[in-house]
Amino acid sequence: MKAPFSIDRARLYRELAELGKIGAYLDERSGITGVNRLALTSADGEGRRHVVERMRSAGLSVCIDRVGNAYGRRAGSDDKLAPVLMGSHIDSVPTAGRFDGCLGVLGALEIVRRLDEERVTTRRPIVVGFFTDEEGARFGTDMLGSAVATGRIALPTAYALKDRGGATVRGELERIGFLGEVPERLPVAPHAYLECHIEQGPILRARGLDIGVVTGVQSISWHELTITGKSAHAGTTPMELRADAGVAAARINVRLREMIASGRYGGGMRATMGAIMPHPGLVNIVPGCVVATVDLRNPDDALMAASERDIIAYYDQVAAQEKVEIAWRQTARTEFVPFAAEVQERVAAAARARGLSCDRIISGAGHDAQEMAHICRAGMVFVPGEHDGISHNPRELSTEKQCGDGIDVLLDVLLSFAQES
Amino acid sequence: MKAPFSIDRARLYRELAELGKIGAYLDERSGITGVNRLALTSADGEGRRHVVERMRSAGLSVCIDRVGNAYGRRAGSDDKLAPVLMGSHIDSVPTAGRFDGCLGVLGALEIVRRLDEERVTTRRPIVVGFFTDEEGARFGTDMLGSAVATGRIALPTAYALKDRGGATVRGELERIGFLGEVPERLPVAPHAYLECHIEQGPILRARGLDIGVVTGVQSISWHELTITGKSAHAGTTPMELRADAGVAAARINVRLREMIASGRYGGGMRATMGAIMPHPGLVNIVPGCVVATVDLRNPDDALMAASERDIIAYYDQVAAQEKVEIAWRQTARTEFVPFAAEVQERVAAAARARGLSCDRIISGAGHDAQEMAHICRAGMVFVPGEHDGISHNPRELSTEKQCGDGIDVLLDVLLSFAQES
Repeated sequence: MKAPFSIDRARLYRELAELGKIGAYLDERSGITGVNRLALTSADGEGRRHVVERMRSAGLSVCIDRVGNAYGRRAGSDDKLAPVLMGSHIDSVPTAGRFDGCLGVLGALEIVRRLDEERVTTRRPIVVGFFTDEEGARFGTDMLGSAVATGRIALPTAYALKDRGGATVRGELERIGFLGEVPERLPVAPHAYLECHIEQGPILRARGLDIGVVTGVQSISWHELTITGKSAHAGTTPMELRADAGVAAARINVRLREMIASGRYGGGMRATMGAIMPHPGLVNIVPGCVVATVDLRNPDDALMAASERDIIAYYDQVAAQEKVEIAWRQTARTEFVPFAAEVQERVAAAARARGLSCDRIISGAGHDAQEMAHICRAGMVFVPGEHDGISHNPRELSTEKQCGDGIDVLLDVLLSFAQES
Repeated sequence: MKAPFSIDRARLYRELAELGKIGAYLDERSGITGVNRLALTSADGEGRRHVVERMRSAGLSVCIDRVGNAYGRRAGSDDKLAPVLMGSHIDSVPTAGRFDGCLGVLGALEIVRRLDEERVTTRRPIVVGFFTDEEGARFGTDMLGSAVATGRIALPTAYALKDRGGATVRGELERIGFLGEVPERLPVAPHAYLECHIEQGPILRARGLDIGVVTGVQSISWHELTITGKSAHAGTTPMELRADAGVAAARINVRLREMIASGRYGGGMRATMGAIMPHPGLVNIVPGCVVATVDLRNPDDALMAASERDIIAYYDQVAAQEKVEIAWRQTARTEFVPFAAEVQERVAAAARARGLSCDRIISGAGHDAQEMAHICRAGMVFVPGEHDGISHNPRELSTEKQCGDGIDVLLDVLLSFAQES
């Protein structure tokens, strides 16, 4: 289960730094350089061209599909067999670091370079891919590219998604030159899908573990709330006549914390109000309308369902209490997605063979692997992060060793699948 | 105390409707047409040119000062005497009706027209003015023009104020053609300052009163909070490691309601969180930073001071509880401003002489009259509003009769001062 060679972790780390320069910005509070490569922006386009060039330099033949997913293919000795696909994403949230997603893509490329250097020919072809808009931070739907590639989301639906300024996915793909011509549905299910990713949480680091064997992705539920009250003069309107959409949003935000504290939804529940947009949003006007989001996560499907039921009931309670209307729509909903036992076993075996400590871990975040899990054996390798594993933040940091360990394990697991007949 | 004639209230109402077309927008939720003439925008410039043209049509000689205040002058028979000044503002919040401010300006113009028609020459000159950015909705400082004219704010300070996009007051004055050349400080204190305004609250209408005799403007305190937490991944970051600036803002917003409910700060306390701007403001990211505002009002200076002390202490409590930093700055602060007893008495007498019901009322909102009160006898006439007196909202509405009653009273009080030697 262990390849007779390792990856060049210094080179991998340099590649991560290079890509991190594209869309870089200075976070003024921390003085740290962060990354802003929102999906299908010009910065994302530049990042894409950079990675495609790195793919070609590594000898891969590259194609772009109709939703902008990029695939670089390395032939196998039995080239008609289904390929082993390694991938992740290079788009980012606006306040990101350089590791989220990029480690999986550039790590896979580093593996290809090492296979060439070691003159290893695999039986099956190998494909390195990056998927469009994994983050969902711009167009509101995460896992977009991988969901289209595996058939969960139809291409016209994806094309029609708009950002807050009204720009569409199709228009932006065209604008940045990544509206490809290859059909978006994968022509054949991969033999396996493998993805290495930073944990984005504190668990591995706190427990001193080198590798996380990912058991699956927890349940995710997103609501977008439109709270409609009555804008009014802040100085003159008696409190009892107000319909303050901002207060209603505040009560829901505080309620989410109370739900966590109650323990009724399990210790793995997470709840966040990430967006709060009051209209008109001025000091002396009672907010007449607020658009806000609720993000719920839970490793347990039944507890997730209970938390959804209870917060939705609370929306009605707050609406009555604050004399506002609360309309909500589900913008994302996934149940727990388990990863293939076979991939988990091989990841654990590879870690042990390399003398790395590991344990099972559930993913708190969504990943492209959850989409691939619907069409093939899929699995993930997690590596620890410093600073409590903070992510979606310029302070996001996994060390050269942490990254290198993860991609070494990915290499071993890749070879085990790619040499199968 | 009663003039032998009245104003033409149908004409006044038409003038209000005409001005209300400038910056009009359709409020999609209510289907009602609102007004958006934020200070020094192009719409405000258009509104200004319209009113200046109306001033000139009414025979006034118009000048613009260096902060964009506009004054139209009608000569008196003893023209060297200090003038009686009537004024208000024509800028608006982004979600306004057509009465706030405009009634005071167009009502004063209607008075001038009636004086001409009745061939009345007053002993003292009469000046009709409108002041720059009374609302403070764009550049963050309300009563800007009247505060500069009366010396509370220095011209360079006013010029340097910026909107959220970085545009300055000076630059915008120049752009819309209202950077005048007349010195900004009033050359001589007016003999009296008179302003008619909608109440912007429910009291007069609920009590069946025609006229409010305004005793003064309540104390106002504005805070701008910058809450700094830590942006982090909403799916993976354990609740106990979060520093969620949005939750901190929500707790402060809820606390303001609890303070009201406690009754400890008097029944006249008002509290509003009008702006809440989370960064980055995305569904799956714990907000790392929130800029929010707090607007406190109180007719009682001591109770205002107590409420400020307690909410500031609460900022520290929330900062510790949510592991965030809360920096705050005072963006406005005024104590209770009393209006001249003599003006109040004349307003009450004029109302009674016309058979209108009236009572004393304190202003919940700030007005240009509060600035003028520092340099001369100042006072206000309030008229009722429909729909609970809602204001800063397209539904803002005072009827032709309500507006007409107020301007008739203003006419009588104006004449009483303007004929004095």
